[in-house]
Amino acid sequence: MKALEEKIKKEGIVKKGNVLKVDSFLNHQIDVSFLDKMGDEFQRLFQEHKINKILTIEASGIGIAVMTARHFGDVPVVFAKKSKTSNISDDLYHTRVDSYTHQKTNDVVVSKQYLNKNDHILIIDDFLANGCAILGLIDLVKQAGGTVEGIGIVIEKGYQAGGRKIREAGYHLESLAIIDSMDDECGQITFRQV
Amino acid sequence: MKALEEKIKKEGIVKKGNVLKVDSFLNHQIDVSFLDKMGDEFQRLFQEHKINKILTIEASGIGIAVMTARHFGDVPVVFAKKSKTSNISDDLYHTRVDSYTHQKTNDVVVSKQYLNKNDHILIIDDFLANGCAILGLIDLVKQAGGTVEGIGIVIEKGYQAGGRKIREAGYHLESLAIIDSMDDECGQITFRQV
Repeated sequence: MKALEEKIKKEGIVKKGNVLKVDSFLNHQIDVSFLDKMGDEFQRLFQEHKINKILTIEASGIGIAVMTARHFGDVPVVFAKKSKTSNISDDLYHTRVDSYTHQKTNDVVVSKQYLNKNDHILIIDDFLANGCAILGLIDLVKQAGGTVEGIGIVIEKGYQAGGRKIREAGYHLESLAIIDSMDDECGQITFRQV
Repeated sequence: MKALEEKIKKEGIVKKGNVLKVDSFLNHQIDVSFLDKMGDEFQRLFQEHKINKILTIEASGIGIAVMTARHFGDVPVVFAKKSKTSNISDDLYHTRVDSYTHQKTNDVVVSKQYLNKNDHILIIDDFLANGCAILGLIDLVKQAGGTVEGIGIVIEKGYQAGGRKIREAGYHLESLAIIDSMDDECGQITFRQV
């Protein structure tokens, strides 16, 4: 999505340790009309799928998921929660996700009430790097017996393994921008030409 | 907002310890078209204010804030973050918020880049009980020298002190539903007639 690549080039900040900050429009301040454009693009990319629910993970995924849901006819959004307790009850699907950014493992849960075998799910998230969060969300849908119709990502770090792993597993994954390399010294970001 | 009261009566679950669960449409699964209706109502309630930004707090506030922003002409949303570190840097506004639900104190931060003295802010959140989260957000806006134009809440627990405190301090506070009492034994919820 050309407009997204331009926005990342203009507003993104490359930091040491493979970090791209897009706090001006996605991860802290939210550019609502731009989110709407991205939602429209996700609808275009996944229009051949029958989707009845969008699954994301708190917190940054929520805004994108909600604005995307509008373009699929106001399907409900479910956001998986990072559990504060290790005390996981029977009425939850539960998976574990390693967080690269915060160097810890999160217990991620969804109530069994809100995921089931009739669900045809579009998974939405802001970033894809090593793929741990997305693989966790796929695992939750599988536990519920539902179908992952597709996975929509705003920014994929194409030089990390997540995207390749998920595509090789046969999932329909679309990333609105794929970064092939970035350099924290000069701030340069190179996008994959698709 | 009559439709909200009906939805809470139908889908809300009263639990022990003064807890109201509205996970079916607000705090876990999100009913996107209903959020849109609430955003429309917030616009009607605050239409006399000039609002250029919406401030909320992660995670449940984000969806409501984003859908509300659309009705104010796509103003940006900023979500305050619960800081994972006590290491607060100079480029952040910082406040402390006691969490009744999780029985702990959160460090809540907003980057100085995204709040400033020219901001006319509508604060949006899902619940208002003792008011700690909202008072924390007001404090962040004050630190930035901005103006709190209004505070929009989905569900206010009217029998707790937060709403009274904030109204007495002179803020324009609107809650889409105000609960006067609830009973976890019979599940009954009584709304304030306004």
